[in-house]
Amino acid sequence: MDFLSDFLTLFLGKLQSPTLGFLIGGMIVAAVNSRLQIPDAIYKFIVFMLLIKVGLSGGIAIRNANLAEMLLPAVFAVVVGILIVFIGRYTLAKLPNVKTVDAIATAGLFGAVSGSTLAAALTLLETEGIEYEAWAAALYPFMDIPALVTAIVLASVYVSKQRGTADEYLSKQEYLSKQEYLSKQEYLSEQGITAGGYPKRDTAGKRVKIWPIVKESLQGSALSALLLGLALGVLTQPESVYESFFNPLFRGLLSILMLVMGMEATARIGELRKVGQWYALYALVAPLLHGFIAFGFGMIAHVITGFSLGGVVILAVIASSSSDISGPPTLRAGIPSANPSAYIGSSTAVGTPVALALGIPLYIGLAQALMGN
Amino acid sequence: MDFLSDFLTLFLGKLQSPTLGFLIGGMIVAAVNSRLQIPDAIYKFIVFMLLIKVGLSGGIAIRNANLAEMLLPAVFAVVVGILIVFIGRYTLAKLPNVKTVDAIATAGLFGAVSGSTLAAALTLLETEGIEYEAWAAALYPFMDIPALVTAIVLASVYVSKQRGTADEYLSKQEYLSKQEYLSKQEYLSEQGITAGGYPKRDTAGKRVKIWPIVKESLQGSALSALLLGLALGVLTQPESVYESFFNPLFRGLLSILMLVMGMEATARIGELRKVGQWYALYALVAPLLHGFIAFGFGMIAHVITGFSLGGVVILAVIASSSSDISGPPTLRAGIPSANPSAYIGSSTAVGTPVALALGIPLYIGLAQALMGN
Amino acid sequence: MDFLSDFLTLFLGKLQSPTLGFLIGGMIVAAVNSRLQIPDAIYKFIVFMLLIKVGLSGGIAIRNANLAEMLLPAVFAVVVGILIVFIGRYTLAKLPNVKTVDAIATAGLFGAVSGSTLAAALTLLETEGIEYEAWAAALYPFMDIPALVTAIVLASVYVSKQRGTADEYLSKQEYLSKQEYLSKQEYLSEQGITAGGYPKRDTAGKRVKIWPIVKESLQGSALSALLLGLALGVLTQPESVYESFFNPLFRGLLSILMLVMGMEATARIGELRKVGQWYALYALVAPLLHGFIAFGFGMIAHVITGFSLGGVVILAVIASSSSDISGPPTLRAGIPSANPSAYIGSSTAVGTPVALALGIPLYIGLAQALMGN
Repeated sequence: MDFLSDFLTLFLGKLQSPTLGFLIGGMIVAAVNSRLQIPDAIYKFIVFMLLIKVGLSGGIAIRNANLAEMLLPAVFAVVVGILIVFIGRYTLAKLPNVKTVDAIATAGLFGAVSGSTLAAALTLLETEGIEYEAWAAALYPFMDIPALVTAIVLASVYVSKQRGTADEYLSKQEYLSKQEYLSKQEYLSEQGITAGGYPKRDTAGKRVKIWPIVKESLQGSALSALLLGLALGVLTQPESVYESFFNPLFRGLLSILMLVMGMEATARIGELRKVGQWYALYALVAPLLHGFIAFGFGMIAHVITGFSLGGVVILAVIASSSSDISGPPTLRAGIPSANPSAYIGSSTAVGTPVALALGIPLYIGLAQALMGN
Repeated sequence: MDFLSDFLTLFLGKLQSPTLGFLIGGMIVAAVNSRLQIPDAIYKFIVFMLLIKVGLSGGIAIRNANLAEMLLPAVFAVVVGILIVFIGRYTLAKLPNVKTVDAIATAGLFGAVSGSTLAAALTLLETEGIEYEAWAAALYPFMDIPALVTAIVLASVYVSKQRGTADEYLSKQEYLSKQEYLSKQEYLSEQGITAGGYPKRDTAGKRVKIWPIVKESLQGSALSALLLGLALGVLTQPESVYESFFNPLFRGLLSILMLVMGMEATARIGELRKVGQWYALYALVAPLLHGFIAFGFGMIAHVITGFSLGGVVILAVIASSSSDISGPPTLRAGIPSANPSAYIGSSTAVGTPVALALGIPLYIGLAQALMGN
Repeated sequence: MDFLSDFLTLFLGKLQSPTLGFLIGGMIVAAVNSRLQIPDAIYKFIVFMLLIKVGLSGGIAIRNANLAEMLLPAVFAVVVGILIVFIGRYTLAKLPNVKTVDAIATAGLFGAVSGSTLAAALTLLETEGIEYEAWAAALYPFMDIPALVTAIVLASVYVSKQRGTADEYLSKQEYLSKQEYLSKQEYLSEQGITAGGYPKRDTAGKRVKIWPIVKESLQGSALSALLLGLALGVLTQPESVYESFFNPLFRGLLSILMLVMGMEATARIGELRKVGQWYALYALVAPLLHGFIAFGFGMIAHVITGFSLGGVVILAVIASSSSDISGPPTLRAGIPSANPSAYIGSSTAVGTPVALALGIPLYIGLAQALMGN
């Protein structure tokens, strides 16, 4: 009962958060045919600023971490981050009428990490007096960034395969219906370069060369900015400029991005009418499932290297959380054809409350049971 | 005598304020044919940022206010805000050679509220030991936003009527002379959509359908951003993003807007040569007149609901003040054909010093006389 | 030995600074063919913001300074600032294969002032107990801004002369080779207006009217923004907007400018292969030479007006330092044809460590010797 009322309180609170407020505001602005617009140059720069910041904060956390000591949990974090996206790719994406790129983007968001969910877990661990390694919170970029990169690459591979198939079999009708949901214009403008690079397609139809697509994805503006920030965070000392510039501007710029995404979402919310229940189901089950998988990996590290049970809980919470911070800008720029209403709606309205109200108490209880309390 | 020297000190001080400094700087930059430019995308984004901030701060103030208790004064604030614009529409705009859109914009600015004038009044009320309701300062958005909306709508109605008249009577000459002062290019680009929407004009010439114009005005980028901010402020909890982003950036972005407006003003300052005295007269009389009107309405609330005399002073000061903060960006975007030199010059150089040095002491003295001190 | 190890530590530290980190990051981004881009409107606005800030901080320092007392040292600062650029123009620019515009830009950067080098000197002076006038640090804008203005004007004069020569003698081949290194596109777009203004060229070939070029340079967007900021800083009171907006955003915007300059630098780093040693030599010798020249001028002021020996050291350090703050944005916008790899590389990698590790101790030791310690 407590869980349910907690859940509802969190759900209602989330609807008042500036992030979702600006998203819904943008939807209303578009619905009433306002002529309000954010210039394209500004939009591109905002995405750049957000991605550089996400990369920098991850890079700074990694640089300040004790890599030798945290090696095994960090490797497990990377593995879980990638695994989460593949799970979504082969469950959510296979449900009837669910569009594959939307499902991959949603899985990417659920693989990425929410800083506020993590902070809530740390607070609760301290309240409960459960000890954890000081570096455990620094595991988050090891799951966050691989999950987002995997999602973008998987989406690119999928889109390329579809194009290949379409070209081979000349199944014109299927091709067109697929084109439609790829948000035609964006698809063409963004993937134009890719298309040019692969004039010859494999005659086996379904087989597509993966590596060039991975390279293409990494050269795209989204992952370039993310990885540039990561590299600068690891290799240089950008703390001064991070603290004085990229971090303070982050929330505000994110709210404007949300507004733009809301303005676009209005036109595409109808797409979700037939599949909303699948997203709700995924968003309810996935956080708990991901958390248990990560808890299992954490226990392996606990047995082998003595990784604390508090650390195991943190790893599970990181996996259980879904990002409403790093995810939206990265996925918007990296998988432009995915419908933001799908992934942001799933994460903010269901996934995050589930992780907070059900996930955290579950993993802490599990750890306490294992500790013999 | 004190009033006069206070007035002159304030007048000279105002000339050194960054707001006016950047305006004059922009005028000089344009006068020496500099190639300095603010890209259009940046300009549009700055206007958006300023308007969202004005809306947000108004919305937050309203959400935190006790609406039931402040109902009557709030209604009076709305009434006075709208009334001020109509007064300007039928006095200043009727003076010889004064252009109607310039006059409406100026009246809108005098209806809008200056936060710094309000702060000065609150300080003085406390010094004098006059009590007022804690929510009285939150009356300002109830006058500020209606005044600006009214000004923009009145200007749109006027422009549409002019076009209708011109089309009907084919009085080519008049039409052309009217077009000239509407700053042709802006007029066409901004009003283009409006024009398309009204292919049939009323044959009575002067009669124009008002509601579509009001709707058009509300859908314009200026009022959309303002009302979006207002709605987000009232309905969500945007304090974190407001305090960390929109509010800190406000003054700086305003200074850049002032620079742009100054660069444009150089070309149009000549228009004011024949009418400068009328603006000076209006800016001298209007703040005091508006204040007395609001004082009267406040006294009605005093008698009916026991609204404090300190609150009555605050209502009068809000009406007396003219905005150099929320007004310029809103009017620049909402009434693009109005000459910024007219309304900013009137407000900053004369209106604000009058409200500060004459208005505030007058209303406080009046309240003290009524209190029997 | 201490000097050498200090130098190496500083050199390695500099490579980790965010400024250089973003520059190198941009070079790598371009080298791996990323599609990351900063929109042009954003780039122009960033340059504007940086230049206004440089001007404002100089102007505020001048306004707060006691001009009567500091007259002679200030005049000497202006003289040294201009002299440094002319020295570079007639030494570095004359070395084999060194491109003249690159050399002039580099000399401009070495004439400009580094705030952090100055801060280091002030700290050391206080540690050593050497007294100096409170206003001595305010001498920096008197050297910084004249040096940058001189560099931009000299570069414009040079470019105009080249064009004149080329037109006169029709030495087509030379013309083309010259055009090439002027980074054709930028050259044409930026100088297009200039070209239009001088249809008739002096028949003496080498003689070009200087004043119109100076005027053109001052009307350019770079110097306009710089001088506008300077004027606003001297004549108005922009402290509030400077402290809340222009100053806090400075380092962050500079890092993004560095990223853009790095992305451009990749294509042009090859130009420096044959001349790298000359830049290294200049960057090693120039800071010490400039410092000694300024020390000499300072001693004249010491004898005539009793300017303190601590002040003399400060004047020398200002001359010795090279700007990695005010310089890059100003030169990038003011001399677009100059190769940023040349001037930023020389200053950041060699010039600044030399000034810090060799210059400051030298001038302090010299002052102490003169004081009879």
